[in-house]
Amino acid sequence: MTPEERAARVLARADELGQISEDEGRLTRRFATPALAEAGRLIAGWMTEAGLVVTVDPVGNVRGRNGSAGAPLVLGSHYDTVRDAGRYDGPLGVLCAIEVAGAAGDSGGPLEVVAFSDEEGARFAVAYLGSSAYRGRFDRAWLELEDAGGITMAAALSAAGADVGSLRDLRLQQAVASGPAGAAAPEIAAYVEVHIEQGPVLETEGLPVGVVSSICGQTRLRVAITGRAAHAGTVPAGLRADALTGAAELVLAVEHELRESEGLVATVGELVVEPGASNVVPGRVALSIDVRHADDAARESAVARLEAQARALVDERQLGLDWSVVQSTSATVMDAELTACLCEAVAARGLPVRRLVSGAGHDGVVLAEDAPVAMLFVRCRGGVSHSPLESVEAADVAVALLVVDDAVKRLAAPRAG
Amino acid sequence: MTPEERAARVLARADELGQISEDEGRLTRRFATPALAEAGRLIAGWMTEAGLVVTVDPVGNVRGRNGSAGAPLVLGSHYDTVRDAGRYDGPLGVLCAIEVAGAAGDSGGPLEVVAFSDEEGARFAVAYLGSSAYRGRFDRAWLELEDAGGITMAAALSAAGADVGSLRDLRLQQAVASGPAGAAAPEIAAYVEVHIEQGPVLETEGLPVGVVSSICGQTRLRVAITGRAAHAGTVPAGLRADALTGAAELVLAVEHELRESEGLVATVGELVVEPGASNVVPGRVALSIDVRHADDAARESAVARLEAQARALVDERQLGLDWSVVQSTSATVMDAELTACLCEAVAARGLPVRRLVSGAGHDGVVLAEDAPVAMLFVRCRGGVSHSPLESVEAADVAVALLVVDDAVKRLAAPRAG
Repeated sequence: MTPEERAARVLARADELGQISEDEGRLTRRFATPALAEAGRLIAGWMTEAGLVVTVDPVGNVRGRNGSAGAPLVLGSHYDTVRDAGRYDGPLGVLCAIEVAGAAGDSGGPLEVVAFSDEEGARFAVAYLGSSAYRGRFDRAWLELEDAGGITMAAALSAAGADVGSLRDLRLQQAVASGPAGAAAPEIAAYVEVHIEQGPVLETEGLPVGVVSSICGQTRLRVAITGRAAHAGTVPAGLRADALTGAAELVLAVEHELRESEGLVATVGELVVEPGASNVVPGRVALSIDVRHADDAARESAVARLEAQARALVDERQLGLDWSVVQSTSATVMDAELTACLCEAVAARGLPVRRLVSGAGHDGVVLAEDAPVAMLFVRCRGGVSHSPLESVEAADVAVALLVVDDAVKRLAAPRAG
Repeated sequence: MTPEERAARVLARADELGQISEDEGRLTRRFATPALAEAGRLIAGWMTEAGLVVTVDPVGNVRGRNGSAGAPLVLGSHYDTVRDAGRYDGPLGVLCAIEVAGAAGDSGGPLEVVAFSDEEGARFAVAYLGSSAYRGRFDRAWLELEDAGGITMAAALSAAGADVGSLRDLRLQQAVASGPAGAAAPEIAAYVEVHIEQGPVLETEGLPVGVVSSICGQTRLRVAITGRAAHAGTVPAGLRADALTGAAELVLAVEHELRESEGLVATVGELVVEPGASNVVPGRVALSIDVRHADDAARESAVARLEAQARALVDERQLGLDWSVVQSTSATVMDAELTACLCEAVAARGLPVRRLVSGAGHDGVVLAEDAPVAMLFVRCRGGVSHSPLESVEAADVAVALLVVDDAVKRLAAPRAG
């Protein structure tokens, strides 16, 4: 098949997968749902067609192995989605992996394709359930988490036919599957993922693909600013303690960091005003701040600067401040050798090598804890993701397939030697 | 009775009225409720005790007339409340009016005390129902308005025993009650109201009472700023259209007007962010702006400046703007002669005459349409109103009673001559 035919098949399969949804009229496919299981069966069929031997683990990860023995190079992505999703965030990487593994056969060394069952965390608010389970780091306390409808994860998995008891020690199961129990050898050699960029940089620069240098670390803050609710008609400026005007200053301080700090993204996405009546001066504002950077020190110093500014402005305005760090995750640096391999493959196609930081999280964050990881981004229209408007071009998918084909060969070569 | 004893009786009666509520454990007494009717009966009893002849009109206004014939000087306020209210916003003016009328007897010329049944508009979202009906400006279309529970005003009034049919022409009824039907003479001579300040100015300046110069005009705006929702991790500064950072700039522009424009109050009290997720750049923000000033031209030019600033900032930020005026009411200037009378009475007590603008609306707005109106504000603790924390001092109430006693005498004197 030509690269164009393979890319067309990827897009056709993405369309087919995109029809499988929990919701009528829009694409929603969350963890441990009948829709996810149905999509998993379709993927398993395509893996089989590509000559892979398929297994499905208790959390619904679909794994397809070629015939070559040893710790595999793993290619994959996730096949769950957010609510009202697009067709490519996740599935594109799974479908490209199947194409590459099918083309490589057994000649490319040991290969495994994995379709992870939960990366988005859209049902139980814990991201990376699939890859965490795959790497033996499934926390059995998660089984008690409830979805918005009050269904526990254990009940949802049981209903989906999973052996919930086996989830108690997935690491053991993993070790057994890969070789002798307790073997010290790494279970996987490396992990390479193709994913849509979910941002507008490649489109802006006119490039089909980019190579990820690292996945940003992230700090999530919850901030509450408290003033004094008061009658909007009767309390003059000098006697007000307006929580919203203080919050507005902080929102602009966050924007200033975004604009001035190279490589930083910072966002106030939630902001709730109390009591929230048109004729009452706001007494309290709760807001979120999301700060991301590929460099942990740069991220932490931006957070410190923002906290200092928040403290200064509430002091000046005689407001109260509650500042709390909800989550702080370090950046994940992609493996240098593996990434060099992808870069060489991009350059070999006569394309500029654009290295990109990923502001979004990916399964690679989990895989990188004990394996080399690299990622290839594919241009998406308008930088749009988590939306039915997600779109990729067949020509760009063809480039991604050729780059990963080439990278797999380059990786297999020294190991085979 | 000494002024102190009369003030103590006012406060004791405010406590007693404060026990009559729709809600358990907090004070809520809205239009056409059994609680309002019960409070009305209590007020009617106190009016009778003060020597007044009581009537209750179809909307629940309680009117007490002395024996002196002619167009009366009306003293009053309202006896409905907001949800979770304090005991003084409204009732203080009613109870002071009863004290003053009782002390004046028939010697002070024709007097009427009115306790209006709805000023707050807490049930049907139309303010001044009581005073509008009293002045023959009850709009019968209001009878079809529904409360939050889907009960129409007509049904609520019928349940409260009102003759709903008679509400079709209250002006006729009013004319009949005041003299010959169709009489050209003014039905009332003037209206004087005592009310808590609902703001902190008198307390800040250490004054028991203040004389209202005018009730602010008010513009209520609904503003929507639209940008582009986007992934908070992947879209860099230059490619964002963040509706919230634009809104924050507007919030600070409103605060700037508040601080820099003499006599203006301006407030953003509501602000809602969509989609409102911590990891999504805000795509839309809807907010309210409330602008008040005693001078209509000053208010209108402030609104125009704010609109110009909003248009400039959305242009610069490539955002969309939807700017709409929900309500615009003119300022109500208090009657000069009547107000001079109150000022003289304040000065006669050896107190500084502090003239105040009312940022809140009052029944005087309706009465002033066809009668001279004046208002006396009483200091309230912390400037707090619409809260169970509302509080006034007996000594301040005593001053208010003496000032209004005196003003009634001053008003009666020339008319009697």
